[in-house]
Amino acid sequence: MDKLHKGWFTEFSPDDLEKLNGEESSTKLLKSDGQEMGGAWPGQAFSLQVKKVLFHEKSKFQDVLVFESTTYGNVLVLDGIIQATERDEFSYQEMLAHLPMFAHPDPKRVLIIGGGDGGILREVLKHETVEKVTMCEIDEMVIDVAKKFLPGMSSGFSHPKLDLFCGDGFEFLKNHKDEFDVIITDSSDPVGPAESLFGQSYYELLRDALKEDGILSSQGESVWLHLPLIAHLVAFNRKIFPRVDYAQSIVSTYPSGSMGYLICAKSANRDVTQPARHPTDTQTFRFYNSEVHKAAFILPQFVKNALN
Amino acid sequence: MDKLHKGWFTEFSPDDLEKLNGEESSTKLLKSDGQEMGGAWPGQAFSLQVKKVLFHEKSKFQDVLVFESTTYGNVLVLDGIIQATERDEFSYQEMLAHLPMFAHPDPKRVLIIGGGDGGILREVLKHETVEKVTMCEIDEMVIDVAKKFLPGMSSGFSHPKLDLFCGDGFEFLKNHKDEFDVIITDSSDPVGPAESLFGQSYYELLRDALKEDGILSSQGESVWLHLPLIAHLVAFNRKIFPRVDYAQSIVSTYPSGSMGYLICAKSANRDVTQPARHPTDTQTFRFYNSEVHKAAFILPQFVKNALN
Repeated sequence: MDKLHKGWFTEFSPDDLEKLNGEESSTKLLKSDGQEMGGAWPGQAFSLQVKKVLFHEKSKFQDVLVFESTTYGNVLVLDGIIQATERDEFSYQEMLAHLPMFAHPDPKRVLIIGGGDGGILREVLKHETVEKVTMCEIDEMVIDVAKKFLPGMSSGFSHPKLDLFCGDGFEFLKNHKDEFDVIITDSSDPVGPAESLFGQSYYELLRDALKEDGILSSQGESVWLHLPLIAHLVAFNRKIFPRVDYAQSIVSTYPSGSMGYLICAKSANRDVTQPARHPTDTQTFRFYNSEVHKAAFILPQFVKNALN
Repeated sequence: MDKLHKGWFTEFSPDDLEKLNGEESSTKLLKSDGQEMGGAWPGQAFSLQVKKVLFHEKSKFQDVLVFESTTYGNVLVLDGIIQATERDEFSYQEMLAHLPMFAHPDPKRVLIIGGGDGGILREVLKHETVEKVTMCEIDEMVIDVAKKFLPGMSSGFSHPKLDLFCGDGFEFLKNHKDEFDVIITDSSDPVGPAESLFGQSYYELLRDALKEDGILSSQGESVWLHLPLIAHLVAFNRKIFPRVDYAQSIVSTYPSGSMGYLICAKSANRDVTQPARHPTDTQTFRFYNSEVHKAAFILPQFVKNALN
């Protein structure tokens, strides 16, 4: 089985793909106490039928593929992993962006780390409270292909409130203290360029870059696949933040069909599971509403057991 | 791409599989006003790595395959579609069974239509209120392979409270009126033997077989894939039942990773979105809890729009 085979693209777990290609494993999976924690989903694979390959190049950081699928619109793939399809991207983008944005009573300054496809930016700009959005994406090629092939996601790149930096999010944070109301980490999995965005020192930088009442959200992997990693992230963040919560939503084309969101607040008085504001008549959402916000934090018993 | 190819099993949409095999389409998809509504997920496929094929035969009704996977335990496949894996089956079984069971204050007589793998039976028997469980499964071979290869699911088949019938659920219902507190339809998709279980006349039989305060739950497909079918089911059931609600949960190995549950109550006073009872200390659940019950009925905005 190839990644692109007889008109189908197949997303294998990074470690399985190496085995299928007869390569020695170079995949660095996050480990703790010898236990593999994330970035992989061995033994399962998801495929989409390809109508046309639109772009396929290697950037300085990763393999960048965009194809038109037969039933999911255009699809962005980084290092063999599906990042977004036009059909279902709204679920992930709305939840990762609006859980922290609506939990904050007045988010004016927002930082997005990663998010090169523009989907999170589009959602953040729906909030009229926002005065400036700073975005730090390491891979300019992702922004370029999004502008060309994902116009519904990348419309915000021309917005006057945007300050765009191309560079490493980890390095960027070192020079920014007490500056942001909301920080959103929209990263790929902890294999490749996003690896440093899953460690404790990254979250300490995030805390320091937030204002006193600041809130952060991070891509939080899948409860079906990465529960040890999620428990690890929640546990070390409880030493850094007074409030650490975990939410999840369905996303059709992510491995196992669900995605988690790690939400941390710098103030102990901020309950992020309850919206501090509600959608206005001029805001349009396809996934998010105030009830969905609260329900996203209600976790299946096996997840609750693992995190508490 | 074959269904079983180089050590992987791939679940294609029934219509895609026919095309890949060069066959003319014989798949009967439920249609309304010319719109395809359910039973298919064209352009996408899900694969599991196979360790060993344990059983593969054709029954009178369908193709029955059981294989040991490398990472999901044993897997039951009917007509090419994954029905249950040992790793994630608890999500579906617990939600389909306990949403109606806990919404009912005192369920004594329960009917299961389908459910040949035994998972729903196992969950229903966790309720001490239950005096008798009647089960009507059309395909005896499914029960036999479950007993042999899915022992964790099929333990209830030897339970003294069980009355087991092998036959057609639709026909069975015609002879049972005002008899059950809860009826659970655990069927495959509306293609093949389960087709008759998605029509209005089936739901009229269900209503008549329920007692006055009875509740039913049915496998309700995926909001990502079958929203027109779901809207159709909800709409015609609103003519049959005073209360019709729709819930959903994540299930890793179902198409697009989520599964819906159609819950209807015969009494207008019964709010099925709120548990009438709560788990006791002797009941063990891996997915269900009272908060999960309520949250399952909170639907993403695009689903809410489609159903109202």
